[in-house]
Amino acid sequence: MQGGGRMQFAMVPLNFLKVGYTAAYIDSGHWAKSAITYAEKYGNVAVIASSQTSNYDHIPTYTNCPQNSAYLHITSNNTIYGTQYQTYPSTGKIPLIADMSSDIFSKKIDVNKFGFIYAVAQKNVGPAGVTLGIIRKDLSAIHSDNIPSILSYNSYVSENSLINTPPVFAIYCSYLNLKLMHQKGIAQIEQENNEKATLLYNYINQSSLFSTNAIADWSTMNVCLQLSDPKLTQSFVDYATKHDIIGVKGHRSVGGLRISLYNAISKQDVLTLINVMQSFEQKPEF
Amino acid sequence: MQGGGRMQFAMVPLNFLKVGYTAAYIDSGHWAKSAITYAEKYGNVAVIASSQTSNYDHIPTYTNCPQNSAYLHITSNNTIYGTQYQTYPSTGKIPLIADMSSDIFSKKIDVNKFGFIYAVAQKNVGPAGVTLGIIRKDLSAIHSDNIPSILSYNSYVSENSLINTPPVFAIYCSYLNLKLMHQKGIAQIEQENNEKATLLYNYINQSSLFSTNAIADWSTMNVCLQLSDPKLTQSFVDYATKHDIIGVKGHRSVGGLRISLYNAISKQDVLTLINVMQSFEQKPEF
Repeated sequence: MQGGGRMQFAMVPLNFLKVGYTAAYIDSGHWAKSAITYAEKYGNVAVIASSQTSNYDHIPTYTNCPQNSAYLHITSNNTIYGTQYQTYPSTGKIPLIADMSSDIFSKKIDVNKFGFIYAVAQKNVGPAGVTLGIIRKDLSAIHSDNIPSILSYNSYVSENSLINTPPVFAIYCSYLNLKLMHQKGIAQIEQENNEKATLLYNYINQSSLFSTNAIADWSTMNVCLQLSDPKLTQSFVDYATKHDIIGVKGHRSVGGLRISLYNAISKQDVLTLINVMQSFEQKPEF
Repeated sequence: MQGGGRMQFAMVPLNFLKVGYTAAYIDSGHWAKSAITYAEKYGNVAVIASSQTSNYDHIPTYTNCPQNSAYLHITSNNTIYGTQYQTYPSTGKIPLIADMSSDIFSKKIDVNKFGFIYAVAQKNVGPAGVTLGIIRKDLSAIHSDNIPSILSYNSYVSENSLINTPPVFAIYCSYLNLKLMHQKGIAQIEQENNEKATLLYNYINQSSLFSTNAIADWSTMNVCLQLSDPKLTQSFVDYATKHDIIGVKGHRSVGGLRISLYNAISKQDVLTLINVMQSFEQKPEF
């Protein structure tokens, strides 16, 4: 589909939030919160769980949705806080909708559990500018008469995603990457991601300088860290840059470091990073 | 902006059609009609002129907008019918909004005449997947409180078009092309486009085999033709293909031929095409 994640934040309630129903959301971080703010423009919203008060250091526990819930929306991985759903909520007949932008294709997922999954391309799929959607067919038509076709999932389904000229370059690159992932197999990709995350978390757990922001539900895609002395954060970023490691600064809202382990990062990359972290920890005056 | 032309068809009324006002549209062809259909989802629409009954063979004459018009929307060039505005309507205090997707950067345009101009990239700008918008600053904020930021022109203005991860590849390629066009100068580009169109129309006007669909307001970007014997259309398409000329088939709704003369087409390309048309006309049994 055209448009990025925020377009989906608008399209999800536009397409699925029937009049008289409530949209249930779990607030597990920045993007989950943003999806909630969008939905509130369109109707009744219930935030059924949130970990905001503990600065999103874990995935909040699922509690029941209101009976008249049109759907439950979750964000499967929280890039800024380094948390990730380990098991998805069971919602019975209420469709589960997930923003999987930052961990789709990182592991095997049972799509049958979901009414709708969406993911922007620019993490594990392809270049920014196109969004992947996987919809349970009976859900696509709910609101299709009331909304313009470019904002209607039903139109994307019935017109084979060719409502108008699509972003061809982003789709073509995504296709090449999907082919590559298919050859490798999702089991192999999952195993590699687990190995990468385990290596890094094992090192952090025994380190006296680095510690994770998350207290549970640690993400295999984004490892968010603090240094025991916050003044050393910039020193480490500079030190890493000298060793050709860039982009490790944490999001400005949490500070610290963020190590992203998307599929494009190899086990060797992680070992190199751990070496740099170790040598910095031994001589933080660098 | 993210999203293509149809996203703008929705965003224009969402952003500019205030409650109690009417959206005025001129129906000059397929895309103009599509913009009207979208606007009708959002409020009161007045089609103040249309050339539909003569199969869009000219640009309909501008008549006055209703007094309570929020804006007048036009489509500056009609790709399927080969017509183009030669002079834009004067709307006084009513903002003029133009879809310039298929002729922006083909000629000098006085942007001061317009409240809002939008154009998808994939004709004269860059790859599909990004849309250019030029807005009069006082117009951007009309409806910004009621709509989600990704659909709000005001958000694009206030956040420097960085609401979320933009389609970077399409923007970068567009930047390279804009730089190239800037070096060449719009006066030079306009002169070349006029030369190309004049060469082709002059040939057609003296031809007994080819004639334009349009009876006035001929476009410099899309030359739409019929053959005096419609059975020869496919023969000509095949003959052109043999001479390495592709993409000349007319839109299925009008048949015939469509010769697109976007900026990327050179004068030499046009001369080559005319040669092929001439040799076909002399021996249509090919």
